[in-house]
Amino acid sequence: MSAEAGKDYYDYSDWYENALPTKPPVEIIPPCDPTADDGLYHICIAAISLVVMLILAVLARRQKVWDGLKGVPGLLSPVNFLDHTQHKGLSVAVFGVLFCKIFGLALAPNPLPFTKDTQYKEYWLILALFYYPALYYPLLACGTLHNKVGYVLGSLLSWTHFGVLVWQKVDCPKTPQIYKYHALFSSLPQIACLAFLSFQYPLLLFKGLKGTEKSNASEDLKSSYYRDYVKKILKKKKASKARSDGVIFRFPLKLAVSLVVAFIALYQMALLLFTGVVPTLQIVRRGVDEDIAFLLAGFNIILSDDRKEVVKIVVHYMWCVEVCYVSAVTLCCLVNLAMFMSSMILHRSNLRGLYRGDIYNVYNCQRSIRPSRPALVCWMGYTSYQAAFICLGMIIQTLVFFICLLFFVFLIIIPIFYGKNLMLFHVIGRMWPFWLMLFLAVLMQHLTSRFLFIKKEAGTRDLTNRGSLFLLTYLLFPVNVLVGMLLGIWRLVITALFNIIHFGRIDISLLNRSVEAFDPGYRCYAHYLKIEVSQSHPVMKAFCGLLLQSPGQDKGSGQAARDAEEGIQLVSQDKKQNKVSNGKRARGHWHLLYTLVNNPSLVGSRKHFQRQSSESFINGTLNRSSKEESKNEGNTTEASKEAEGAASN
Amino acid sequence: MSAEAGKDYYDYSDWYENALPTKPPVEIIPPCDPTADDGLYHICIAAISLVVMLILAVLARRQKVWDGLKGVPGLLSPVNFLDHTQHKGLSVAVFGVLFCKIFGLALAPNPLPFTKDTQYKEYWLILALFYYPALYYPLLACGTLHNKVGYVLGSLLSWTHFGVLVWQKVDCPKTPQIYKYHALFSSLPQIACLAFLSFQYPLLLFKGLKGTEKSNASEDLKSSYYRDYVKKILKKKKASKARSDGVIFRFPLKLAVSLVVAFIALYQMALLLFTGVVPTLQIVRRGVDEDIAFLLAGFNIILSDDRKEVVKIVVHYMWCVEVCYVSAVTLCCLVNLAMFMSSMILHRSNLRGLYRGDIYNVYNCQRSIRPSRPALVCWMGYTSYQAAFICLGMIIQTLVFFICLLFFVFLIIIPIFYGKNLMLFHVIGRMWPFWLMLFLAVLMQHLTSRFLFIKKEAGTRDLTNRGSLFLLTYLLFPVNVLVGMLLGIWRLVITALFNIIHFGRIDISLLNRSVEAFDPGYRCYAHYLKIEVSQSHPVMKAFCGLLLQSPGQDKGSGQAARDAEEGIQLVSQDKKQNKVSNGKRARGHWHLLYTLVNNPSLVGSRKHFQRQSSESFINGTLNRSSKEESKNEGNTTEASKEAEGAASN
Repeated sequence: MSAEAGKDYYDYSDWYENALPTKPPVEIIPPCDPTADDGLYHICIAAISLVVMLILAVLARRQKVWDGLKGVPGLLSPVNFLDHTQHKGLSVAVFGVLFCKIFGLALAPNPLPFTKDTQYKEYWLILALFYYPALYYPLLACGTLHNKVGYVLGSLLSWTHFGVLVWQKVDCPKTPQIYKYHALFSSLPQIACLAFLSFQYPLLLFKGLKGTEKSNASEDLKSSYYRDYVKKILKKKKASKARSDGVIFRFPLKLAVSLVVAFIALYQMALLLFTGVVPTLQIVRRGVDEDIAFLLAGFNIILSDDRKEVVKIVVHYMWCVEVCYVSAVTLCCLVNLAMFMSSMILHRSNLRGLYRGDIYNVYNCQRSIRPSRPALVCWMGYTSYQAAFICLGMIIQTLVFFICLLFFVFLIIIPIFYGKNLMLFHVIGRMWPFWLMLFLAVLMQHLTSRFLFIKKEAGTRDLTNRGSLFLLTYLLFPVNVLVGMLLGIWRLVITALFNIIHFGRIDISLLNRSVEAFDPGYRCYAHYLKIEVSQSHPVMKAFCGLLLQSPGQDKGSGQAARDAEEGIQLVSQDKKQNKVSNGKRARGHWHLLYTLVNNPSLVGSRKHFQRQSSESFINGTLNRSSKEESKNEGNTTEASKEAEGAASN
Repeated sequence: MSAEAGKDYYDYSDWYENALPTKPPVEIIPPCDPTADDGLYHICIAAISLVVMLILAVLARRQKVWDGLKGVPGLLSPVNFLDHTQHKGLSVAVFGVLFCKIFGLALAPNPLPFTKDTQYKEYWLILALFYYPALYYPLLACGTLHNKVGYVLGSLLSWTHFGVLVWQKVDCPKTPQIYKYHALFSSLPQIACLAFLSFQYPLLLFKGLKGTEKSNASEDLKSSYYRDYVKKILKKKKASKARSDGVIFRFPLKLAVSLVVAFIALYQMALLLFTGVVPTLQIVRRGVDEDIAFLLAGFNIILSDDRKEVVKIVVHYMWCVEVCYVSAVTLCCLVNLAMFMSSMILHRSNLRGLYRGDIYNVYNCQRSIRPSRPALVCWMGYTSYQAAFICLGMIIQTLVFFICLLFFVFLIIIPIFYGKNLMLFHVIGRMWPFWLMLFLAVLMQHLTSRFLFIKKEAGTRDLTNRGSLFLLTYLLFPVNVLVGMLLGIWRLVITALFNIIHFGRIDISLLNRSVEAFDPGYRCYAHYLKIEVSQSHPVMKAFCGLLLQSPGQDKGSGQAARDAEEGIQLVSQDKKQNKVSNGKRARGHWHLLYTLVNNPSLVGSRKHFQRQSSESFINGTLNRSSKEESKNEGNTTEASKEAEGAASN
């Protein structure tokens, strides 16, 4: 179809002849099979992983026999999620790899690499949800034994995973799905995590050979972190407090994993939102030709008499839509990054608050900080829920931002630039007496309130001219109804915007404070905190470390100081008290005192904890309106009474 | 068009001939001019109102000269919004009449009755917003003087308003706008309010003639309500507390007015939502004939081969839509009525809490309860904002409920009944292995948490089997991401639903607790409470009453006990202390003590209030976690210290 066709620009004949108006030159990408076939590779690597696990099991058994200890960290629990000091890299990287794989599952044509059967796809998908965690499990387990053979196996395994993945991506950088480079970009975080593992295992092996690598339990409980934490909180120097606080606080492992997984979720969602829409929009924009004039004329939209002009206008508008979309996705990413940061700050302050026993400020009600069934379920799902909420939140945010930006561009920016379609401005302009009246009414209320109805006298403020105040209230009642309408719309906008922006954050509730717990995200977070604080309070860990040291000095070190759990059990069961001398016992009592005085939230987990004393103690902790310093002292007094009582028993 | 037209049911020829497919027999309502022409009536009643105001002004001047007092309640402030005991009927009724009129303005073809000019409609509308409050002002002012002439004028005026309105509605029950009876139904609350006034003024006149009617100030300050309130809170009997509390609490006038106005707003909006849509739907439904088959075929929707069958199906579907809409509006009304009730409960508990000085519980932060510019502006607009929010909220609620019900009916109910279009069920059914897996995964987590990972020992709960817990957490990570997706959708639904349902309530914030004040509705309410509590604390009022009594006994009663404001000013300025004997002064000190001990929130408004004491006092009030009883005692101790200090100064 040519522009010189004739005078009648809206002649429909050639429109019907040429049914497809847009035939852009699309680059056709053939399906690509990498040299390292995925099915074959997975069969091999699954077999290798099984062999590695068997070797590790044999090693673990021998190590157990040598050490003669029950407490060797089992192969079946390679991650201690309740840890603050352990080297977090391995777990974080494995979780990252796993999450990338899971995210890819939703888009992959066949979820399990062994089979290309599509009839029972849902069953293969379910199977894949359990296959991949099992597949990457040896990558975690190799680091558990703190054994050179383990590190060697880990290095080999991570190199294999890394090598094959890179090989596949080099072989087939382009795939036909979504966007040609989507699969490549999408595997970048996975490659990064595997590269980290491939680097980390040899490093651990090197450290192990040099003998500087410490065992798991000693790394956790003997870590100077806990003792430093205790020392810091026992110091009362105000000046250095703010500075040293930042140094000494470390995030729990589960929070670190959650953060990294959330970050990967953000990356993957942003990639999907970009590559799923922008290339299509570009193709459509490139494909716009003069047929679009007929199409629009079919809907009675005549943008211009010249068909070339119409094409130009349509292409420009489509470019605007594209810009809006890209801006929306970018805005969404930035908002979520900002939310991550403020989440981290809030996590820190919540954890520190709960360590201090400041339960009311965190939960806005009294709760007992001890493990319970729902708390444990929420704790288990925390990382996953966080990632899911980020994904869902980003979809909603992009949609809302996109619509808002479209309205903004097409109703405000373009009309201002081109001086036409000024509908919105006409409507607002026609109503100017209204806006003026509302503005004047509100201004008058503010001015009269400030200068006429409030008098300051002897340091207090009081009402005056009550008669005029009541009269004005009555007379402005109808105008205020209109002001109320505007406020109502504002309420709608601000509420929706706040909740949409904060949708991905589960550390704050989107509901009113009285029904906070009905928000499933916040409920999960609140429960998660309970488990985290009750099980990995740094002062409790320091105390466990000290307790384990004492018998260790009697029996010879290195042997007894292995198991973190054993240490924790010592606290509640007082197992070895009979072995400890009187001097040691006194020392133990003093440690207990220190612990309780400065960490009142631990009182709840004591064995001889009585309800009576707990109530008086809770009363003491709640002098919240006073300064933090004075509160701490208050807690000290109350808690030390309780601790003294306990010590004298 | 007839059914016997031929074999080809989808013959378009007669469709194009007969361009208007639906020609229902619509009842045509001619524009109706009542005998009592609105323009003429308003000119007369405005003139009469002016005359009435002039007569009242002369009366007020004479009464002033007779009484020789400055404190006579001025004609220019007939409503004391800061009153708990005054007979609320008059003000409430006048506000009701005014709100009905304002609501009608938005729909009326000519806002001001004097002119039918439509060119400057917006200016007339603005004028009308100030004209109507002025027009109904004399109805309030007539009751202010507590004078027989005032009551006679008030009776006459309200009878005139009432009579003319009823006459107009009898003359023209049907109007062409919206729905034939909309204007009639819409004026019902107005008629009810005017009827109340027409009954109330003669009643007041009758009481005045019999001499049982009390003057305004004495009714407020000498009311037994305040003294009973003080007596009740000084009694420490716990058993009788809950019962007597209900008896003794009265809502402030402004809250009562707000409730009635909100109720009228609910009625008017419900009426508008019903009559604006349902009759139209019914007309369309009645007008459906066999042409609809062609129309649908034009969109490639062929419901049945028989055109009569198509009509039946379409009529049935339209009936379903109608039922959904009516249900949505009804649901919306019920929800809002329930919200009114829970609002009232919350208002009561908030006011009582603030009287007790329990600021933190109400505001979730420390605030000074004293008048300020924004607080006063919010206080002035409170009633209007509440009404506007109800109106806006009902529109949103109806829309959302309607859409939800439509989805529910057309995707669930109708498919189940007719066994077709079971798309949703097919989708869900095809995904059953998925749902089963998610259910089993969640169940497993709950069961293992309950029986495997938590052990109860010596009254405490602790984690056990940590290894298995960590392993399960890792393995279920992918499944939990899917669970998190579902939770995320649930979060979206619950948040949206909660906020939509509570949109009309301004006593709770729709935002997270840390940013509550950004919700304009809640901000207004919080400020409103400040003014209400600081200015009309029942104990302060009782104290003012007592103070006014003391000099009154010296100088002769009836004369000095007139002005409420004067009494309140006495408290802060200690004007008449020199006139009071030593015994009286001691009594005054004791009253002060009583006041402060039981109403710590008053301490802030004292003249010699020092920051130091306030802080220690605030600390004292915040033992919130202890029982209310023990807290009250705590407050008593702290506040009495401060009061003793003040008394000994």
